[in-house]
Amino acid sequence: MTLLMIADLEHLRVVLVRARNPLNIGAAARAMSNFGVSRLRVVNPYEVAFREARSAVGAAELLAKAEQYKSVAEAVADCALVVGTTAVGGRDLQQPLRRMEVGARTIRRQLASAPVAILFGSERVGLSRNDLSHCHWLMRIPTREEHRSMNLAQAVAICLYELVRPGKFADGKPAAAHATAADMEHLTQLLFQALGASGYVRPRSGPATEEKVRRILRRLNLNARDAEVWLGMLRQIAWKLGSDAS
Amino acid sequence: MTLLMIADLEHLRVVLVRARNPLNIGAAARAMSNFGVSRLRVVNPYEVAFREARSAVGAAELLAKAEQYKSVAEAVADCALVVGTTAVGGRDLQQPLRRMEVGARTIRRQLASAPVAILFGSERVGLSRNDLSHCHWLMRIPTREEHRSMNLAQAVAICLYELVRPGKFADGKPAAAHATAADMEHLTQLLFQALGASGYVRPRSGPATEEKVRRILRRLNLNARDAEVWLGMLRQIAWKLGSDAS
Repeated sequence: MTLLMIADLEHLRVVLVRARNPLNIGAAARAMSNFGVSRLRVVNPYEVAFREARSAVGAAELLAKAEQYKSVAEAVADCALVVGTTAVGGRDLQQPLRRMEVGARTIRRQLASAPVAILFGSERVGLSRNDLSHCHWLMRIPTREEHRSMNLAQAVAICLYELVRPGKFADGKPAAAHATAADMEHLTQLLFQALGASGYVRPRSGPATEEKVRRILRRLNLNARDAEVWLGMLRQIAWKLGSDAS
Repeated sequence: MTLLMIADLEHLRVVLVRARNPLNIGAAARAMSNFGVSRLRVVNPYEVAFREARSAVGAAELLAKAEQYKSVAEAVADCALVVGTTAVGGRDLQQPLRRMEVGARTIRRQLASAPVAILFGSERVGLSRNDLSHCHWLMRIPTREEHRSMNLAQAVAICLYELVRPGKFADGKPAAAHATAADMEHLTQLLFQALGASGYVRPRSGPATEEKVRRILRRLNLNARDAEVWLGMLRQIAWKLGSDAS
């Protein structure tokens, strides 16, 4: 697996071609910021849209630094790899189409040494044949055939997610220590006791019920901290049932 | 290998909790349609937003069929697995946090046999502690620490992408059916009742204890059969404690 370094993302250019909706440009910029990608390029944006997007919240700095180009050729001139995105299926395409995961892997490798551009087309018609002709190959997000066309900013978000996905790990806490067998047995006895006092355990089935209780408690796979909470709860319940009975 | 069949997606419920922006609700619906997910549920949406979203283009039918609920408990009652999404890191969370890929794999397995809910919180503050207490575990999209919070619809899009990404193939054996959220909530109420009657719950800390009980029960990841056994045990204990008190 190729890991992506933060510095590598400096090599990535997100190129929006003829985007029309300021909300989409702003939302795409926010997604870039979420995933640590800062180089936004726009080709012939609908002028008003671009001005409005620049005042969008959340990614103001990124938008302020966005570079504007008159043609795709100029926007990708410094890039060693140019990848197009498309909603269209394989048959009508002139360029090779790669699965997202496969394409992202190649992009990650390339980013380590040289600039890479990912192109996104306009909301209504996507990238033109001419735009696509600048691309080495294409990627398609696996939407269903009956409703292929995605929202522009969502498409950007998914592509960037796929790109950074393998490198970043959710920062969960380390797995907690399992409860000890002693604690689990203590729990078993307390629960069995509470069940006895409440009339759940029939006299003849005592041993079978105790085993059942032991098994069902072990299946919980409690960690040490939760086991302590359960011990506290069951201790109180068993005590109360005992004191009421006496 | 377990296939993720189209039919399995019928089991998925996307639950938006207190969404405020009609554009976000509409965009989330569109992303669902892109990935073939049709069951949208909203909990206490900002009323105007929901009405406006319903007139959004692209996913009108899906939005027209969206179900509206007054509480998270009702919205997830028929679900065997309830997964929360969060922008927050691991330290402050009460629930286990799973990496997206790992979480998605578990969800795919569960979808083969039972309904699953994925919860998304409001644009501004995400899911509340109380909302999260209904969740078995959480997933976080790996955004960077300095700008974690994603656009709502983009978060929906990425989660659904991750879910359908492996194509029709998911791995692992079919999981035993999870207990439904309704059963888990019933268990929560019985245990809370028993704890109240036994003096475990201090008067002032009632709501906090109820949430704690809800969380610790969700962490057990009970299957449907074990949940039934626990319901029988706790029903008896709660009844006994109640009858002794009266």
